[in-house]
Amino acid sequence: MPHEIRTVAIVGCGVIGMGWATLFLSQGLKVIVTDPAKGAREALERYLDQARPFFERHGDFEQLASNYEFVSDIVPRLVEADFVQENGPEHQEFKKVLMTTLDERTRPGVVIASSSSGLPSSAFIQQCKRDPSRILIGHPFNPPHLIPLVEVVPHPGTSEQSVSATMRFYQSLGKRPILVHHEVPGFISNRLQAAINNEAYSLISRGIVSAEDLDLAVTQGPGLRWALTGPVATNALGGGGGPDGFVRSIERLGPSIRAWEDDILEHRFDWSEEKLSTLQDKVKQWLGGIDWSNLVEERDSTLMQLLAAKSKTASM
Amino acid sequence: MPHEIRTVAIVGCGVIGMGWATLFLSQGLKVIVTDPAKGAREALERYLDQARPFFERHGDFEQLASNYEFVSDIVPRLVEADFVQENGPEHQEFKKVLMTTLDERTRPGVVIASSSSGLPSSAFIQQCKRDPSRILIGHPFNPPHLIPLVEVVPHPGTSEQSVSATMRFYQSLGKRPILVHHEVPGFISNRLQAAINNEAYSLISRGIVSAEDLDLAVTQGPGLRWALTGPVATNALGGGGGPDGFVRSIERLGPSIRAWEDDILEHRFDWSEEKLSTLQDKVKQWLGGIDWSNLVEERDSTLMQLLAAKSKTASM
Repeated sequence: MPHEIRTVAIVGCGVIGMGWATLFLSQGLKVIVTDPAKGAREALERYLDQARPFFERHGDFEQLASNYEFVSDIVPRLVEADFVQENGPEHQEFKKVLMTTLDERTRPGVVIASSSSGLPSSAFIQQCKRDPSRILIGHPFNPPHLIPLVEVVPHPGTSEQSVSATMRFYQSLGKRPILVHHEVPGFISNRLQAAINNEAYSLISRGIVSAEDLDLAVTQGPGLRWALTGPVATNALGGGGGPDGFVRSIERLGPSIRAWEDDILEHRFDWSEEKLSTLQDKVKQWLGGIDWSNLVEERDSTLMQLLAAKSKTASM
Repeated sequence: MPHEIRTVAIVGCGVIGMGWATLFLSQGLKVIVTDPAKGAREALERYLDQARPFFERHGDFEQLASNYEFVSDIVPRLVEADFVQENGPEHQEFKKVLMTTLDERTRPGVVIASSSSGLPSSAFIQQCKRDPSRILIGHPFNPPHLIPLVEVVPHPGTSEQSVSATMRFYQSLGKRPILVHHEVPGFISNRLQAAINNEAYSLISRGIVSAEDLDLAVTQGPGLRWALTGPVATNALGGGGGPDGFVRSIERLGPSIRAWEDDILEHRFDWSEEKLSTLQDKVKQWLGGIDWSNLVEERDSTLMQLLAAKSKTASM
């Protein structure tokens, strides 16, 4: 991908596609976008409008946010794309057909990144006849224009050139791409989330803690640290910091942790109908009493302040 | 505990005890503190001094931070305490003996809270002859004066009155106590941390992702959300929000998540010497190249900005 990226094709414009569009547009890129769902065009207009404060941090809202074309058939326009971000439904058969078309109709060397959140690309490139070596996963987190993480996951045949061009492109947009060396189901972050969620569901359904207090056990405790230092650095700091802090922490706490792990494993949430129904009842008791009207707005505004505070440091 | 809490005894003054002392003093309480370790008194002086910006947010540093007595033998002074916060080593036999003394020498009804991070109090109250019903766990997170979470864990014989008095006391200090209904090893947050850490160690030692990228997968992604919304609310928002958002999210993603969980389980980090050594090597490669000089300072300063931003919202 030796060419400069000026035009991005967004194929599939639900919540994730709209966030990508916001990000690309805010960086001055041209976007060609499509989605067959009824009302998708209007939903994108509303989304961009609500993201006005975000655009204004990057330049003139009217100029940046209008630099897109919503088209009903993107196939004849794919030749204009310098990069493709695909956000279709997470169904293997659907993606197989879609990828074949994208591969057929884009120019040679143009990277095709799929936002797939857990399905690796080797599951849907079998029918691509031209050049599947430029296909990979670029999995964002919602909302994609605010959360920096993108998981870049090549399949075994993805070229190194495509990987490095994609990493550079995402970095140039202010994102923090990470490289997943081998395809694993769920990639990295969704596996970590699944691990913590399973224990959360277990503790709530067993009646050890209320759903509200379980959430507080994260947002008022380790969640505050995880926004700043990840599992490895947090452990290292717990062991006094420095290159040997991690080893010290593991040696000191390892035996306790292994005992906790055994107990966690014994009581894993098994997804049985009975457990699931208990979990959902307990969660509903709490969520039914929450004021949802300002939650998303407050989260996004606090998130922007958090990201601004982090951007002032060298290490976060 | 119908009396007002004005004087707190801190038994054991390592990192956790010093943080508790900082919190209690900043709230205008009198503290009587002891620790047999050499240099403990001087370490406390330094700690309080470094926490000057924290004290200044609550009042006059000189006045607040000097309101303590460091004593070599706290036993004859226990009668003055309105609340005891115990932070001794996490050894069952040691705590058994210590608890017997604390129970013997404090006034009736005074709550004795242990900072134990995973050992439930029923493991060390057997020899208490006076009133073990006022003993419970009050497990903080480091640093205790900054991180709001405290896990309050009664044993089966702890009185409801002691539990509610403890919850009210911690709340009055600006902390966010949660109630753990039944004793489980590791309580809540350490179990959640153990769950995510096991998968982190597995992914790193398997070579799926570097230690640095693993941490970024949290700090640039879900960790940002977990500082604001916990696992339950995050799932609910992922399902469109509202009381039914959680159920919708589970119904939509459940099958994928279960497949990821099966794969996680198959590849669990087993703590074998081989795996442990691979993990430590890979972690050291990264941590050896980090600039540690400003990391703790930057973390604490960013943490204070994050907490300030959260405190301006109704829901975070």
